[in-house]
Amino acid sequence: MKLAATLSSIKPEMDQVERKIKEITSAEPSMISNTSNHLLEAGGKRIRPVFVLLASKFGASKQGDVIEVAVALELIHMASLVHDDVIDRATIRRGRPTVNDRWDNGTAMFTGDFIFARSVELLQQLNEPRLHHVLSHTIHQLTLGEIEQLKDRYLIGQNLFRYFRRIKRKTALLIASSTELGAISSKCNDEEIIQLKKFGYYIGMAYQIIDDILDFTSTEEKLGKPVGSDLLNGHLTLPTILAIQNDDASRSSIEAYFKDPTEYNKGLIKQTIQDISSSPSIDEAYAWSDAYLDRALNALESLPSHPIKKTLRKIAVYLGKRKY
Amino acid sequence: MKLAATLSSIKPEMDQVERKIKEITSAEPSMISNTSNHLLEAGGKRIRPVFVLLASKFGASKQGDVIEVAVALELIHMASLVHDDVIDRATIRRGRPTVNDRWDNGTAMFTGDFIFARSVELLQQLNEPRLHHVLSHTIHQLTLGEIEQLKDRYLIGQNLFRYFRRIKRKTALLIASSTELGAISSKCNDEEIIQLKKFGYYIGMAYQIIDDILDFTSTEEKLGKPVGSDLLNGHLTLPTILAIQNDDASRSSIEAYFKDPTEYNKGLIKQTIQDISSSPSIDEAYAWSDAYLDRALNALESLPSHPIKKTLRKIAVYLGKRKY
Repeated sequence: MKLAATLSSIKPEMDQVERKIKEITSAEPSMISNTSNHLLEAGGKRIRPVFVLLASKFGASKQGDVIEVAVALELIHMASLVHDDVIDRATIRRGRPTVNDRWDNGTAMFTGDFIFARSVELLQQLNEPRLHHVLSHTIHQLTLGEIEQLKDRYLIGQNLFRYFRRIKRKTALLIASSTELGAISSKCNDEEIIQLKKFGYYIGMAYQIIDDILDFTSTEEKLGKPVGSDLLNGHLTLPTILAIQNDDASRSSIEAYFKDPTEYNKGLIKQTIQDISSSPSIDEAYAWSDAYLDRALNALESLPSHPIKKTLRKIAVYLGKRKY
Repeated sequence: MKLAATLSSIKPEMDQVERKIKEITSAEPSMISNTSNHLLEAGGKRIRPVFVLLASKFGASKQGDVIEVAVALELIHMASLVHDDVIDRATIRRGRPTVNDRWDNGTAMFTGDFIFARSVELLQQLNEPRLHHVLSHTIHQLTLGEIEQLKDRYLIGQNLFRYFRRIKRKTALLIASSTELGAISSKCNDEEIIQLKKFGYYIGMAYQIIDDILDFTSTEEKLGKPVGSDLLNGHLTLPTILAIQNDDASRSSIEAYFKDPTEYNKGLIKQTIQDISSSPSIDEAYAWSDAYLDRALNALESLPSHPIKKTLRKIAVYLGKRKY
């Protein structure tokens, strides 16, 4: 993967992040070690730690809490995924059984609580008050995003504003925090912090939109979960919202499914998922992610000259074109 | 209630705590305001804020974050109750429908996450690093306690050590943190902090044991939930563990129920719940809570002379004799 080559410069630090995540989540009692290890082994792109580390290169200080911040952000992300999977009754993520499937909902809920608690404990070791402030605000927004997502399930008449606000809270703010906190912990100046935060925010928006597109256009093998999971679970993402606006047949079919999301109707909606995946709504959704990507690249341009800018640009373009 | 008279000296501060809890949990989106208000209106004894405020009277400083600490502890407690109720499929708490019953499990899970996130956000405003350290450790232990409780459900061969460790993590540490943090935030000296923490810890142990006894001996009306809920939900508490050790008939009946906790067997176990409620195991459990209460009173004695000692003694005795 091209990304890995781009990231070779931060490999030693990413290894440290990985070790620290393992160390932090491998606590007694054994049940938690089991669920945490299961989650860890499932991997993930570790996008948030990557952005923390890369953003931190802009600052002069090497003394900051960069690794701890990177680990805390990944833990918060992991905890929220575990809880999301309970809501969606998801059985598979990243090609492996979810905690709620392999164990049960209660175990998944408390595993999420535990991982979240560990991230809070890690945070309290950080000295810089701004780190606390940004992170606790982001966690607050993340839980609001979770609640909105739950409330908006099976809700057909959603506008784009609602979708964008939701993905901002659920995804973009956590990635914006990654670049912002990386910058803060390496003592970047205020203007650099602002631009790096902006970069993270726009990348986060583009990243989630593409995630939502791939849920339609990719394969079960690449996704590590069934194609169209979002729509099947009643989550309206950008391609669906656009399809509802653009295409009456899709709209009727989705309406019927949301009224009665039985197994039988699940079969019927799969045709609609396929229809959307080859519809102009996908191109329209890509236009949105491209627009956010452009803004991310603009934010990057306004940063002072630095070798890491090239890496960040590559990652932005890679994420904008990724196929899984 | 006699307790209220004892507490009249901290009424203005308790009102502040109540207002702050309401303010913090009344956020958009409306769904969360609804669930939070529902929880707030259900009330509760607010034991943790009471102990924060009372312990803080030993210190000289009036500038500390006493109210914020009290609110944060109550929020953490509320969040854990909401998640507990999901596990137990509880339909009623404090005489009102639970969040999972009135709404659904997902809403309850995310309401808990939100309240927890708000407590973390509140915490980051506190300046004293020791407050962060104690609280994040307690939260960590609390989630371990939650997981243990889940793991130990329907597990017949539990010893007392396991029970005591579980209630330490689930209850006593949070109450120990209440008195400890009240003391820290009002700048008590180290010896006072240690003794107040001990007092809270022993009271917390006694408090939970009595809670577990009342689950057998009280009435549905006073409990605000069915008598014997713990055993019905597969949780072995002190009276049950002692009854299993003391009485073969109880042991067989519980074993049979745990093997097959159907509605039909639920009917049968109700007789066992009644048997336990009038058995010597209850007296034995009271002996344990009395022993913890004595230790709490001893910790109190070692504190310097102060008018608030009398109040704390009264509360300790009240909690040790409470009937609901």
